[in-house]
Amino acid sequence: MNDTPDLAFAQKILAAQPFSVLLGTRLTAFGAGAATLELDDRAELRQQYGYVHGGVIAYVAENAMAFAAGTEPGDRPLTAGFTIDYVRPAGGALLRARARVVRHGRALAVCRCDVASVGGDGTETLCAVAQGTISFAPPAGSGRA
Amino acid sequence: MNDTPDLAFAQKILAAQPFSVLLGTRLTAFGAGAATLELDDRAELRQQYGYVHGGVIAYVAENAMAFAAGTEPGDRPLTAGFTIDYVRPAGGALLRARARVVRHGRALAVCRCDVASVGGDGTETLCAVAQGTISFAPPAGSGRA
Amino acid sequence: MNDTPDLAFAQKILAAQPFSVLLGTRLTAFGAGAATLELDDRAELRQQYGYVHGGVIAYVAENAMAFAAGTEPGDRPLTAGFTIDYVRPAGGALLRARARVVRHGRALAVCRCDVASVGGDGTETLCAVAQGTISFAPPAGSGRA
Amino acid sequence: MNDTPDLAFAQKILAAQPFSVLLGTRLTAFGAGAATLELDDRAELRQQYGYVHGGVIAYVAENAMAFAAGTEPGDRPLTAGFTIDYVRPAGGALLRARARVVRHGRALAVCRCDVASVGGDGTETLCAVAQGTISFAPPAGSGRA
Repeated sequence: MNDTPDLAFAQKILAAQPFSVLLGTRLTAFGAGAATLELDDRAELRQQYGYVHGGVIAYVAENAMAFAAGTEPGDRPLTAGFTIDYVRPAGGALLRARARVVRHGRALAVCRCDVASVGGDGTETLCAVAQGTISFAPPAGSGRA
Repeated sequence: MNDTPDLAFAQKILAAQPFSVLLGTRLTAFGAGAATLELDDRAELRQQYGYVHGGVIAYVAENAMAFAAGTEPGDRPLTAGFTIDYVRPAGGALLRARARVVRHGRALAVCRCDVASVGGDGTETLCAVAQGTISFAPPAGSGRA
Repeated sequence: MNDTPDLAFAQKILAAQPFSVLLGTRLTAFGAGAATLELDDRAELRQQYGYVHGGVIAYVAENAMAFAAGTEPGDRPLTAGFTIDYVRPAGGALLRARARVVRHGRALAVCRCDVASVGGDGTETLCAVAQGTISFAPPAGSGRA
Repeated sequence: MNDTPDLAFAQKILAAQPFSVLLGTRLTAFGAGAATLELDDRAELRQQYGYVHGGVIAYVAENAMAFAAGTEPGDRPLTAGFTIDYVRPAGGALLRARARVVRHGRALAVCRCDVASVGGDGTETLCAVAQGTISFAPPAGSGRA
């Protein structure tokens, strides 16, 4: 892709991720080095104490950072690795992950992400922070979201 | 819990995680500072290139480290944070995450985890490595797996 | 310490770190969940290509996050762990690390830090970003800055 | 460099790092995807409680992983980022960092490192574990150790 990808294009990529479809993830913002993913808190996404499972939070942070890195034209983004720190248990109506590119280099982009639980009244409560490295690979078919 | 938890006890905890049930995760080894989780590679766990989604790999690594930290008697383990680096795309018959405690302190345990894809013939191929910190909280009900 | 520590108090702690004295680190801001450390770029802090050694950058990020976590009254902060991603080679007149607390919990604080090289004209160029977890330990004498 | 680098070659690189000379770091093993660095515990490497400063431990882990990644012929290794978790305060006669490559890809290598304090009798006590990503850049002169 040589053109700057837009929200509709990126939403098609998300729809092509069966795991994101399984979880019900939505891409609600995309562009200028930033991306926002949301998913509703459902019973099947929880752990044994009734909160959203840490693995779901890690998934949405990783995916949001990969989308943020994909807002510029160029090769397809593949997550090389990331770190996440959990700061509060996550509950509420939905999870929102806001990622942004800190530095977009030739071979790697470094991103940060905040994951918040959003209450029924729209109030956000920070539940995790992440930092990750995204690599760029040629369009050939051997990668990871 | 003041007794050393055993495999059957830990399998009940896993079964009480709706998200792990959704993904079909199995706990196949548990004890002496180590735990192994497995889940079958299914179409709905993949990303847009046909490999297991990086979020699934992060989930299984995080969960395996939390279980490894829970092999000793004491307060319930809650993941404080972790890092994962992806080294190869994951495919094959199943994913296997082997976690072990590097150091179990009073308030925190540090763990490492290797995630491999396992082929139909049982061959393992390393696909990700992780390192995490697990905290311990009183049995009260406000935590994360 | 039960009072809110101030800049002068924190500067005494920094002066009590022989390694920070060796490197010439200065604490230039401290309070309200944030801390700034600076150190001059000197020949002996470099690696083989003439840039500031990645180990120096890691040191200043780690130390800045520990100081940020120490801005609230309470037990002494000890770094449990951190992650750093390098985004540009560091040169210039000095290094500046700005850390702030993202979440201050009872047992752990999570912090972020930006490390910039500062040119002779005061221009900042981001060279690394970090995220870390700081634990709190009783005043007894067995810790780490 | 197209030949496999050897210990003597790598020791020259270490000697060309002024910061490593300042700290007195020695490269004691190098080859086959692994490297070991050591440095003596000296008063000027400590923090305010008398232990080795966490920044020194981070430095030696980062540098050991970059050397491990440089054991194969090819472009020069530059650390993209790393994570370190501290598990015990570090004291004793010297620090020893053992790093090894987990996966050496075309553009990135992923490494792990154990840092131990070594007592006067040679006993090792694990004090930190690290995991890092090393990128490879052309021989041109704009990098980081």
